[in-house]
Parts: sequence; C-alpha cells; structure tokens
Amino acid sequence: MEQSRPLDTLNQSRGKRVIVETKNGKQYVGKLTAFDIHINVVLSEAEEKVDGELKRKLGNIFLRGDTIILIAPQE
Amino acid sequence: MEQSRPLDTLNQSRGKRVIVETKNGKQYVGKLTAFDIHINVVLSEAEEKVDGELKRKLGNIFLRGDTIILIAPQE
Amino acid sequence: MEQSRPLDTLNQSRGKRVIVETKNGKQYVGKLTAFDIHINVVLSEAEEKVDGELKRKLGNIFLRGDTIILIAPQE
Amino acid sequence: MEQSRPLDTLNQSRGKRVIVETKNGKQYVGKLTAFDIHINVVLSEAEEKVDGELKRKLGNIFLRGDTIILIAPQE
Amino acid sequence: MEQSRPLDTLNQSRGKRVIVETKNGKQYVGKLTAFDIHINVVLSEAEEKVDGELKRKLGNIFLRGDTIILIAPQE
Amino acid sequence: MEQSRPLDTLNQSRGKRVIVETKNGKQYVGKLTAFDIHINVVLSEAEEKVDGELKRKLGNIFLRGDTIILIAPQE
Amino acid sequence: MEQSRPLDTLNQSRGKRVIVETKNGKQYVGKLTAFDIHINVVLSEAEEKVDGELKRKLGNIFLRGDTIILIAPQE
Repeated sequence: MEQSRPLDTLNQSRGKRVIVETKNGKQYVGKLTAFDIHINVVLSEAEEKVDGELKRKLGNIFLRGDTIILIAPQE
Repeated sequence: MEQSRPLDTLNQSRGKRVIVETKNGKQYVGKLTAFDIHINVVLSEAEEKVDGELKRKLGNIFLRGDTIILIAPQE
Repeated sequence: MEQSRPLDTLNQSRGKRVIVETKNGKQYVGKLTAFDIHINVVLSEAEEKVDGELKRKLGNIFLRGDTIILIAPQE
Repeated sequence: MEQSRPLDTLNQSRGKRVIVETKNGKQYVGKLTAFDIHINVVLSEAEEKVDGELKRKLGNIFLRGDTIILIAPQE
Repeated sequence: MEQSRPLDTLNQSRGKRVIVETKNGKQYVGKLTAFDIHINVVLSEAEEKVDGELKRKLGNIFLRGDTIILIAPQE
Repeated sequence: MEQSRPLDTLNQSRGKRVIVETKNGKQYVGKLTAFDIHINVVLSEAEEKVDGELKRKLGNIFLRGDTIILIAPQE
Repeated sequence: MEQSRPLDTLNQSRGKRVIVETKNGKQYVGKLTAFDIHINVVLSEAEEKVDGELKRKLGNIFLRGDTIILIAPQE
C-alpha cells in the first residue's frame, strides 16, 4: 500500500473551500487556489473570521506558511 | 540491535488514533493518515479539544509541523 | 490543467495596491514593487494602519518576510 | 582524548528513564526509546508532570525537538 | 521589463538615511552603510527612538536581521 | 594573527564549570562535557538556579541549543 | 567602490569594547574577542547591565547569535 503524504491531502483540496487557522487566533475561509512546500497558501473569495464571526471579506489572499496552524477542508 | 528513530514510531501509528497537542494549548484527536519529515500531519475524523473538552468536529485536517508539541498514539 | 503556485499570485500583484499584515498587528498598504522567495516585500507609497486607521505615511518600505502574515491585493 | 558530542549523551540514555522539559513548562518522564538529530524524541511509559505533580499517563509519546529545553537522564 | 527584487531597494538606500524598526518596538535611524541577504544591517550615526522620541545616540550599530520588521528610506 | 572563533572559546571550557542561561530565565551550572555546532550542550553535576538560588540538582543534562542565551565559564 | 558587508563592521570591532543587546532586554558590555556567521559572539571582561545599571561582572561569555538584537562598538 502506498503511503500518502500531507501535501497530497492539500492537493486534493485545490479548488475547494478550506478553513485556515493562524497563530494570531484568526480563521481564513476561502477556496484553496495554490500552496507550496513552505505551506504558503493562496485563498480566493476569502473571509476573515474570529471565533467563527465574520470580520472582513478579503477576496484573494496570500498567507505565509509559518503563521499557519491548521488547514481543514470544508466538505 | 538496530536502533529505532522517532519517525518509525509515527509510522507505526498510521491508520490509528492519535492525540496531537499544539503550541496554542489545543488537542486534536483523530486517525493519523499522513505525516512528513517536518512533522506536518494529517488526521481524519479529527476533533478539537481544549482541556479534554470537545470543541469542534473537523473531519480531515492538515496540521503544520512547527505548531506541534506532542503526538501520542491512543492504544 | 497547470497548477498555480503562491508566488504566481504575488507576481500578478506587482505594481498593484496590496495590504500587508504583520505579526505585530499592523497593516501596510501600498503598491507592491518587489518580493522574493522569503516573502521579503517592497511597497511604494506605503501607509501604516492600525485597526484600519492611518498612522503614518512611509513612502517606500522594505518589509522582512518573516514578520508577514498575509498579503491581500486590493482590487 | 576523543571528545564526546551531545548526541552521544542521549545515546547512552536509550532504554533508560529521562525527564524531558518543554517550552510550555511541562515535564515528560519516561523511557527514551528513540531520538534524532532534530532532538525529536520518543518516550515509552511516559507521564506528564507540571511542577513535579503527575497530570496524565500517556504511554508512548513523540515530542517534537523544537519544543524541548532539557533532557536529563534519571539515574 | 526587468523585475526588481527587495534587496535592490536596500541597495539604492546605501549611504542614505533609513529608519529600521525592530520586533521589540524600537526604531533605529541612521545612514545605511551595509546589509546582507539575512538583512543584517549596519547603520552609522544611529539614533534609537521609541514612539518617535530620541532615546540614545549610538554611532555605528550592527542590527541582526531576524529582529527587523521594516526598513524605510528617509527621502 | 589568527582569529579565534566562538566555538574555540567553548572548546577551552570543556571539563570546566560553566553557567548556561536559557530563554525561560533559568541558569544551569555544571561541568561542560560536550557541545556541538547547534550549541546543544551537555553538563555534568548540573544544578538549576533561578535568580541565583538553587532549585534542583540534576546530574547530567542535555540542553537544546536554541534555548540558550549565554554560556559563561566559571573561573 | 567596493561595498562593505555587516560582518566587516564586526571584524573592525575585534579587540574593542562593544555593547551587545539581547532579546530579553539585557545589555552585555565587553571586549569583542570572537564572532561567527551566526553572530554567535564572545566577549571578554563582560558586564551585564539592565537599563544601563551594572548587574553582574561575568568575565568571558559566549552569547548565542539568535538572542542578539544589536551590537554597537563603543568608541
């Protein structure tokens, strides 16, 4: 059985909605359009939330990998 | 006697339930489906807990390695 | 379909206005004139904002990549 | 005289009980079963202590190297 | 059109006055005499300011790159 | 004149008593038995002190380099 | 005109008195006897100061580069 790697999981989420949580306690929800091995991430149609509450509509955003705690695909 | 390495331990936990503790004081409990040398980790059927109390059901999650303190297999 | 990478997104923002948010809770708004793989960034006509309020007009600024959380093009 | 290196010291502690102290102020006491050059560490029969007081019995744990301050063999 | 890189911007500021802001909330104002790819920086005739107020006259200083948030040329 | 390097200084302290100060505000006093280029350090007959006051006798300890601020030989 | 690099500046301070400021808000004043590319530094006849006030006489000290904010030669 071939073993999957974490970036494979991110790859399967391309074009789909994900939640990205960052070290400063914020959540960014949007469509995952790009990522790289540093886990730098680009979301489109992104919204910033704090404690689940909508703070800002941001459109396209680039998030630097080292600020990211968690990425969860929204099924 | 051949000496085991830390990633061997993680490898034995593939497909099994683990607790992952992160630097922001949260616990993620789920099935370990993937990891890499940076200790980036993917869990399925993941739940977020704080002080042992269930906060959220998250499904699949990608956790960035540098936020992780501890991974404990749940026997 | 060719897959885009995060730096492609930054590249499309060259010469356009972006918001850069840093780990110390500040925002820098200006025209993106340069960036590199460390996400070191140069903005021209930059303004520093805190909670959306203008604090300083700075002209050209160099921002060190490891202080950056987010870069959002202003459409 | 040949000079010893820090990892030699860890190597001599394989299979023995050690205390591992982490940056979040916790102690993990257990048998050192594996480590690598990043000081990622695996303990078996691990217990988590805070200020010397037992908090949890954890069994096998993987501790990420960059959270570790100190490893002390228990003679 | 050739694309500029962030270090080009620093290079154009050699011999000119810049403000350097650091993660501990201080500002160093002086003439940029040297920098490298880590953004280690040397200023001459440097002054330390906090909230824009002069704290100390320092002469030549070496600032380690990883403490730097921002470098702004003073036109 | 040949120029000395910082690790030469550590090398001259092998087998001698040193104070190691760490980022969490503690001091470890003991005999320096090993170190490497990451400044991972092993002390024997180590004692932990806080504000100069003895807290614990620890015997042999491994200190991870990235937690260390200062190493001072005790003449 | 040949361009100077930050380490050239440190090199000119060998054997001279410098102030080294660290991320924990302390100052170490002493004679710069060694440094390397990580900005690990050795001072002799070192004194620790807090807010300019003498706290301890330390003799020789090794300071780990990643704790250093600033090095200022004392002319």
